[in-house]
Amino acid sequence: MNTKELTKELMEKISSNYYKDMKLPTEDMLMEEYGVTRYRVRKAIQNLVDIGSIYLVQGSGMYIKESHKDSIILSNTQGLVTDFPERKVESKLLNLEIQEADNSLAQEFKCKKSTPIYLLTRLRYLDGEPFSIEYSKYNKEIIPYLNKEIIESSVFNYVREDLGLTIGFADKVISSNKINKEQAHLLGLEENDPGLFINDTVYLANGSIFNISMVLYNYKRATLFDVANLK
Amino acid sequence: MNTKELTKELMEKISSNYYKDMKLPTEDMLMEEYGVTRYRVRKAIQNLVDIGSIYLVQGSGMYIKESHKDSIILSNTQGLVTDFPERKVESKLLNLEIQEADNSLAQEFKCKKSTPIYLLTRLRYLDGEPFSIEYSKYNKEIIPYLNKEIIESSVFNYVREDLGLTIGFADKVISSNKINKEQAHLLGLEENDPGLFINDTVYLANGSIFNISMVLYNYKRATLFDVANLK
Repeated sequence: MNTKELTKELMEKISSNYYKDMKLPTEDMLMEEYGVTRYRVRKAIQNLVDIGSIYLVQGSGMYIKESHKDSIILSNTQGLVTDFPERKVESKLLNLEIQEADNSLAQEFKCKKSTPIYLLTRLRYLDGEPFSIEYSKYNKEIIPYLNKEIIESSVFNYVREDLGLTIGFADKVISSNKINKEQAHLLGLEENDPGLFINDTVYLANGSIFNISMVLYNYKRATLFDVANLK
Repeated sequence: MNTKELTKELMEKISSNYYKDMKLPTEDMLMEEYGVTRYRVRKAIQNLVDIGSIYLVQGSGMYIKESHKDSIILSNTQGLVTDFPERKVESKLLNLEIQEADNSLAQEFKCKKSTPIYLLTRLRYLDGEPFSIEYSKYNKEIIPYLNKEIIESSVFNYVREDLGLTIGFADKVISSNKINKEQAHLLGLEENDPGLFINDTVYLANGSIFNISMVLYNYKRATLFDVANLK
């Protein structure tokens, strides 16, 4: 059993209320139960801390938190499909075009002027209801091909699994603003209603920027979750 | 020089554009320049990664990012005073009272019914302009004393420095919603304008919850920043 499988196994036990006392077994007990090394147990525990499933109390143990499973986990989001494994995520492609980078796009992507950039807009549904609008830009020199099928499932999974690229990290700027008439129409809201916005700049592990996007979330349906370490 | 001082030193160099090529010196060079151990250099570097100042490219080096210094750093916020060291942060106490925990408060704080809870509301100003409204609750059995002076500077600094308690982590739920008439008045906005909300549950290192708060940010002035690790 590797770290990922162990993390998944523990997540499932936590979410099914397997641990009635809201406490995880000790490291030693987990090592024995799953026949894995201390290193793997610690990695899996760190994953659970990062997504806010458990918290550690020195000298006392590992405690299970109230569930935040209806929120988007900010600090290590893998995309909507992995955020909500038990819910129906659908995407509708609204626009797809290619544009040569002007000065401003070239500066954003730290790429050469005239580099081809994919521009796409997706409307995303959660359990059949409009959940978010994504305005995404991809550097075509890094992601050479995109089509409707890829876009309507998960672009990030395609980048990882089919292109074999390693995604590194994303800078996220979160804000709130009024939504316009078109956005309101798509989300089933009113013009000037609040919108919850995330501007993402996504880097590959080699440091190049392959994706810049703005996601507008339906304020009635989306919440974001994060754990801040204050020590 | 300890890790905290080294982090601060590097942050100042980064923000004053000392590194013209947007790249940090190597670990070895930093160890020599500051006469510190590799362990401390690595800790300081990790701090800079966590707040989104730099990013690492394997086999290539440590690169400086565009500045997000006008945003609130989500993942390790220490409070507004430390978020904006170069700007004027002021607080106005709007309400302070003590209430015995009813069932719902006792459940939130995981404390006994009738535990005294401080309820307070602060209006916070950044550079003289209304920036946020904080609705905070503190368990009085953990924070036995609060007054206007403490509340108008920094409660977290008081908890750490005067009470000698170790703050552990905070669970944060971020959302957007319409603001009401009173909130609009305090922030200089219109009723039903968007609000950016963070609901915090703050734990001491020993696992007890000492603070639960809701902060409403002025949508025209506040943005939140976070780095998500996607590997």
